[in-house]
Amino acid sequence: MTHAADTQAAPHHRGPLGETVVYAYLGPEGTFTEAALLTIPGAQDAVRIPAPSVNSALEMVRSGQATAAVVPIENSVEGGVSATLDALSAGASLRIMREILVPITFVLAARPGVALADIRTVSTHTHAWAQCREWAAGNIPEAEYLPASSTAAAAVELSEPDPSFDAAICAPLVAQRLGLEVLREDIGDVRDAVTRFVMISLPGLLPEPTGSDKTTLVVPLPEDHPGALMEILDQFSTRGVNLSRIESRPTGMFLGDYFFSIDADGHIADARMADALKGLHRISPELRFLGSYPRADHRESEIPRHTSDEAFRAADIWFESLLNGY
Amino acid sequence: MTHAADTQAAPHHRGPLGETVVYAYLGPEGTFTEAALLTIPGAQDAVRIPAPSVNSALEMVRSGQATAAVVPIENSVEGGVSATLDALSAGASLRIMREILVPITFVLAARPGVALADIRTVSTHTHAWAQCREWAAGNIPEAEYLPASSTAAAAVELSEPDPSFDAAICAPLVAQRLGLEVLREDIGDVRDAVTRFVMISLPGLLPEPTGSDKTTLVVPLPEDHPGALMEILDQFSTRGVNLSRIESRPTGMFLGDYFFSIDADGHIADARMADALKGLHRISPELRFLGSYPRADHRESEIPRHTSDEAFRAADIWFESLLNGY
Amino acid sequence: MTHAADTQAAPHHRGPLGETVVYAYLGPEGTFTEAALLTIPGAQDAVRIPAPSVNSALEMVRSGQATAAVVPIENSVEGGVSATLDALSAGASLRIMREILVPITFVLAARPGVALADIRTVSTHTHAWAQCREWAAGNIPEAEYLPASSTAAAAVELSEPDPSFDAAICAPLVAQRLGLEVLREDIGDVRDAVTRFVMISLPGLLPEPTGSDKTTLVVPLPEDHPGALMEILDQFSTRGVNLSRIESRPTGMFLGDYFFSIDADGHIADARMADALKGLHRISPELRFLGSYPRADHRESEIPRHTSDEAFRAADIWFESLLNGY
Amino acid sequence: MTHAADTQAAPHHRGPLGETVVYAYLGPEGTFTEAALLTIPGAQDAVRIPAPSVNSALEMVRSGQATAAVVPIENSVEGGVSATLDALSAGASLRIMREILVPITFVLAARPGVALADIRTVSTHTHAWAQCREWAAGNIPEAEYLPASSTAAAAVELSEPDPSFDAAICAPLVAQRLGLEVLREDIGDVRDAVTRFVMISLPGLLPEPTGSDKTTLVVPLPEDHPGALMEILDQFSTRGVNLSRIESRPTGMFLGDYFFSIDADGHIADARMADALKGLHRISPELRFLGSYPRADHRESEIPRHTSDEAFRAADIWFESLLNGY
Repeated sequence: MTHAADTQAAPHHRGPLGETVVYAYLGPEGTFTEAALLTIPGAQDAVRIPAPSVNSALEMVRSGQATAAVVPIENSVEGGVSATLDALSAGASLRIMREILVPITFVLAARPGVALADIRTVSTHTHAWAQCREWAAGNIPEAEYLPASSTAAAAVELSEPDPSFDAAICAPLVAQRLGLEVLREDIGDVRDAVTRFVMISLPGLLPEPTGSDKTTLVVPLPEDHPGALMEILDQFSTRGVNLSRIESRPTGMFLGDYFFSIDADGHIADARMADALKGLHRISPELRFLGSYPRADHRESEIPRHTSDEAFRAADIWFESLLNGY
Repeated sequence: MTHAADTQAAPHHRGPLGETVVYAYLGPEGTFTEAALLTIPGAQDAVRIPAPSVNSALEMVRSGQATAAVVPIENSVEGGVSATLDALSAGASLRIMREILVPITFVLAARPGVALADIRTVSTHTHAWAQCREWAAGNIPEAEYLPASSTAAAAVELSEPDPSFDAAICAPLVAQRLGLEVLREDIGDVRDAVTRFVMISLPGLLPEPTGSDKTTLVVPLPEDHPGALMEILDQFSTRGVNLSRIESRPTGMFLGDYFFSIDADGHIADARMADALKGLHRISPELRFLGSYPRADHRESEIPRHTSDEAFRAADIWFESLLNGY
Repeated sequence: MTHAADTQAAPHHRGPLGETVVYAYLGPEGTFTEAALLTIPGAQDAVRIPAPSVNSALEMVRSGQATAAVVPIENSVEGGVSATLDALSAGASLRIMREILVPITFVLAARPGVALADIRTVSTHTHAWAQCREWAAGNIPEAEYLPASSTAAAAVELSEPDPSFDAAICAPLVAQRLGLEVLREDIGDVRDAVTRFVMISLPGLLPEPTGSDKTTLVVPLPEDHPGALMEILDQFSTRGVNLSRIESRPTGMFLGDYFFSIDADGHIADARMADALKGLHRISPELRFLGSYPRADHRESEIPRHTSDEAFRAADIWFESLLNGY
Repeated sequence: MTHAADTQAAPHHRGPLGETVVYAYLGPEGTFTEAALLTIPGAQDAVRIPAPSVNSALEMVRSGQATAAVVPIENSVEGGVSATLDALSAGASLRIMREILVPITFVLAARPGVALADIRTVSTHTHAWAQCREWAAGNIPEAEYLPASSTAAAAVELSEPDPSFDAAICAPLVAQRLGLEVLREDIGDVRDAVTRFVMISLPGLLPEPTGSDKTTLVVPLPEDHPGALMEILDQFSTRGVNLSRIESRPTGMFLGDYFFSIDADGHIADARMADALKGLHRISPELRFLGSYPRADHRESEIPRHTSDEAFRAADIWFESLLNGY
């Protein structure tokens, strides 16, 4: 891993206590993850360190080398990013502080002078390839695919002497930085593809509730319990808490052993969310709270009257009065 | 309403502060209700006042004329006692402090010298008649039925000059007290019939939890809500709280407007019951808590591990730690 | 039991096969039940036989003595009519063919020449007394109450020589027929009180579905099953079938043993109702179908798209195609 | 894609009509998929064609080039195989006819003469790398990782002149066939790792029910429906159908648009499964049935009495009798 040289030149962004702010992110430079990071206020002036894997980016946060990390968590085409979901579900606890939505567009890049008709081999990350399959079948049907560890890695190799392939599928940003020629823009098969990134830091102060928040959880499915998934979902639905994402992930222990990665509408400071979390803990005590943070789309969800903060407060007051003999 | 003269003679049972203990009960004297009252420790020496209706017995408690009232609440043959269910659901709030189970047996009583074959007319309370219908059809098929306001009232009228009927169906106790002749014993159609009575007092200190308790509630069905009954039941089932009785009663407002009278296993001091009560309050804020008290049958119900007091405590501690930034 | 003399005079209403139509109804004459019966087309010209009890009215249908019976089933003030609910839940199976709603108003009737101030004793059926309690407390507070077996029976006794009371609370119809003086009209405590009556016949052809129908069921709660009531309700809710009435009744076997009397929106000819009935049968095989018949209020309920007849048909076709190897 | 030369030598296995049986499988040769295929009776003598992708293997079945295809569907460490789940969820409908469980063990293979200490670069499929990460961190911490399109592809490249890396992580079978040296055996981080493969053919005759069967479904989450996942799960749980696997997959349309890949215990010939499938179709009409086939582990699941075939039959008979007027 190397520090990005250009981030060292400027006077760096500093945190509330005057400390230098250091961001780790899933590298290499020039991917959509860096684009996501750059949308964070102050990130332009902070130290930005590309990490070779999601795990290593998160470890930099855990060890204190980085103030925060930015990694992809969900892709509208390929689904949850397994490496991130798995890395957040194990090891020391972390918190999601912010989410960032980045539209994804791919370009077909080649060395200057190479034409579309010349392309025999193309390289990119497997997921990017999956998202451009139809375009490739229609436009470069004879081209052989070579996997790369990231879209940017393919672009970088292409820009070096004697690349082992003719073209790379990558983000516009990196093609431009490396001086590659863009043969075709926007070659993804799905219009409006978007990737969701999260900014992660150590546990500590939570973002304030804004009225349009999201809470992310990791909930292991209790082993000995056939209807357990329904019970888990029921904790949300009986409190009128809507789920915006639910994904299964194997624990890796044995076939059929899962945990669920869940995004729920609302903030831990909302009474109904607090109540749902306590209910979940009773059913699945190993659950993990990954944070409450503002929604990037600012959408607000409707709250059933009977699970409003007022309804919870009224019920608590009533219950206290019973205990006091009224 | 007249005070029972004989209760005035003895030195009376006194409460914790030395005050005279006064029990109201659904009269007249000699019914199963008085038999239930007499099982309460100290009731033999207390002032016992028969009330003409369940409502008036409860009003004596509300107004302070009586320390407590004993009334029937449920009958294994006829079901819930509507007058009691309705009286507890309206007016100033009261508390059930104790339940008492009394086996119900009926006798056919007549004036001395009257034989079974002489009986042309028989009187008793409508419910008692319903419970002896088969016996009557088989043994006194020609006898005409005359309704009475209670089994004891029928017996009393029979013991007075010029009764308008030949026999009464009543409790063994009253027939014996009045010197009537018992022509046949145990004429109820159902073996093992039993009536449940409750002792009711003003809100105040609750009976201590014993590990085998019951909580009684009045839950109005929220009007504007089709699946409301399921939501109400769900508050119990998701906390592993078993229901031992659920009865619908019309509110009297319009067809299809109900409240539910519910007995649930457990005590308000149990965390799962407390949580269920709060959940119910949010859905149906007009619900009424009628008390937590020991079960007469001492049966204990199994508590799911995830709704034990320990599970609730652990969830609360975990949740606090989240708020504190861990 | 005596046949109503006046019904014998006219040429009688005849059924589809030319047979004389005979209606049994809960007597005596002049009650709200007879008023309900008279709303049935042709009932004016049919033989009408007052029966002394709900049970005997139903037995006349079972034995073939009557073509149909009219009995009360639900009262907006007092709730389900236990005698009817219980009689329909046992014995040979019967069918509800029609429901009739009748507004309930009570009058205070006395012999000509008696004034309100003269009234020392008043008689009526217990349920009617319950519905006029407040009026009585405010207007004739000194009057003693004597129970009668029906409102009409009280009126009849009052019209005979030497009645044992001064006034009767009864329906306007009977007071007028008997020539009693109406001292006060509309003395019921609840405005808009209404009673629902049902017309009952032997199983056979069902009324055609009209788009606004009701299905009535008797569902015993399976003994060995704590969450059984939720499972029963779930059979309706998962098919989008709304319940307009649910009432618990004890089976009379032991405390806590219930059946539920249920009215559900829809007709057995609707696919979702058929599916719900089959699901109920699997859970509670002793359930009883009491009929599908038009709603008296013609209200139509909204049907979720996924439980429409079309959705059921489409699912059946799809499933057949799977079995056929497509 | 080339046909495996060695499969052409022997007289080939023939199907029931005497036709040559051709199996496509996810290649290249020597992977765990080929090992899975070889467990199928007759597969040793059939034509076996390695396909470059899951999609192309399935297309060979759809086009008639292959009788059946064998592909991985689930891995105890990495979870569902996205390519297979996605390929089965789109395109012309296919059927799973059989499942095969294969224990997964990895070896570190090198060219003869290379020692563990010499290894600077290692190549394998991303998923295999994920499963050996801990071993690699502990034993070859300095080694750089190069992605390959499959474990076997890495082994093949290593066996060719001038490979661009020093070692491959692959299955024992392929290392042995290619004459590579096995430096370390069983280097997977998880003991007892197992992969589930499925044999897929065109729709047609279903495997007979055996009493221990599995049904695989693809169920899109209806868009406009917040509690839709609960409704889907409810279709199974109300029929007592247990789920052995449930995985979310994005549809690729937009963030939060999912389908669920589900394995349920039982066979489409079981009444409760048939009923659940019809219920699912009504909620999510685009669902796909992927087959009912014997479980590889022969485990039998307990069937609640009320959803046994007998209970369904009894309910159907009862319902018919109602329609016939009984």
